Amino acid sequence: MKFKIAILGAGNLAWHLAPALEDAGHVITEVYARELSKAYSITERLYSASAKDDLDFSESNAQIYILAVKDSAISELADQIILPEESILVHTSGTIPLEILGYSSASYTGIFYPLQSFTKGRKMDLDEVPFLVESDDESTLQKLKKLAKSLSPLCYQVRSKDRKAIHVAAVFASNFSNHMIRIAEEIMRRQGVDFEMLKPLIIETISKSLQLGAKNAQTGPAIREDYETLEEHHRFLAYNDQIAEIYRLISQDIIDS
Amino acid sequence: MKFKIAILGAGNLAWHLAPALEDAGHVITEVYARELSKAYSITERLYSASAKDDLDFSESNAQIYILAVKDSAISELADQIILPEESILVHTSGTIPLEILGYSSASYTGIFYPLQSFTKGRKMDLDEVPFLVESDDESTLQKLKKLAKSLSPLCYQVRSKDRKAIHVAAVFASNFSNHMIRIAEEIMRRQGVDFEMLKPLIIETISKSLQLGAKNAQTGPAIREDYETLEEHHRFLAYNDQIAEIYRLISQDIIDS
Repeated sequence: MKFKIAILGAGNLAWHLAPALEDAGHVITEVYARELSKAYSITERLYSASAKDDLDFSESNAQIYILAVKDSAISELADQIILPEESILVHTSGTIPLEILGYSSASYTGIFYPLQSFTKGRKMDLDEVPFLVESDDESTLQKLKKLAKSLSPLCYQVRSKDRKAIHVAAVFASNFSNHMIRIAEEIMRRQGVDFEMLKPLIIETISKSLQLGAKNAQTGPAIREDYETLEEHHRFLAYNDQIAEIYRLISQDIIDS
Repeated sequence: MKFKIAILGAGNLAWHLAPALEDAGHVITEVYARELSKAYSITERLYSASAKDDLDFSESNAQIYILAVKDSAISELADQIILPEESILVHTSGTIPLEILGYSSASYTGIFYPLQSFTKGRKMDLDEVPFLVESDDESTLQKLKKLAKSLSPLCYQVRSKDRKAIHVAAVFASNFSNHMIRIAEEIMRRQGVDFEMLKPLIIETISKSLQLGAKNAQTGPAIREDYETLEEHHRFLAYNDQIAEIYRLISQDIIDS
């Protein structure tokens, strides 16, 4: 099943999603951005989509309208967009509830959330991206599943309350694990030693974690309850109270769990 | 330069290191373990090493004696081992100071620390492992560097105080990033959703972090200072005070840094 699709937004997600949808055989009819030049930066990567800076889609041929914008912009766009009959409006956020689209002019609404971190210009195979879809309308849900499956085998139907839990989990697994690496970078930089030497350990740790499960993969002073080393590390970090407290709290949680 | 080497210990590190040393052309003369059967579990993977459960090495031909045992056992073994003239005794720990070997019968001492997490039975290419070497004696240092370089191009000479900083950094980069994944697993399990869907995000995050640096790679509600989402996530985690506090503290540190 091929769809005619309009994309609203010209950020990282639109940059990756629009060409991938074309590659999967769908037609991108329009790309909207508040600034026309930004819409062109996406349409120039596409076959025949037109760039738009107004929200009147009453003459559009698209069946599905994808809001690929930041969370804070979703509500305003959904309220202002003018859509034709039988149109489906979806957003792509991990946190915003479905109900926010409820006052739009769309006939049907849904969520089409790619659970991945996108960076413009960085290659990303969409077929390795999980898509989390949701809709109150069964026929819309089926269409969103078909759309997701045309891009990736990893398609999950989830409820809004699951999506919130998944987003919290993603913050730990992604943002917070990245911040642990950031703190390590700082410690190495401060000591004047080369951060490069930690990279093989990080790669092996994460690979082991994903293969064996993080509980089985855990090593280090906390899981060994090596209080002498924990105390010594805590003293070493005395130059930064907040980092020292993060060390103490995470070590305690490793011991407790 | 090829060495005759004795290994003390029969754990994860000995399991990986002993055959790799043979592959690099060195000769393993003896493997010591407190239980002879454990020493055999290593020698059976080697050409001609003999298994030993006593610490009298006065008749050994080895030039380098590698303590591949847990931190808490190093001191006792170093004190009890009987070594021939001109022998070099090294330990493999990231935390224990060089001085702990000072009262041993070795002529020279050093540290030969592979900065990696080893799991018995799991394949690990030693040539991707960084070796951190240290000695007070220049000629010993040169030998340890040659030994390291025979296994891996990643050889770093470090001072004991650097080694401690590197170990603290490694706890953040490895143990703590793994624990963030563990917390994510728990949140997903508790919600009854499939943890699998987070794996592509984790892989992309770490890969981006190592390529661009963790500071540049950071995304999520904290770096965006999206206080509404932070507050909502904190409420979601109210069922576990310790996890909620970890969420608050790391988010604050991301905002501050």
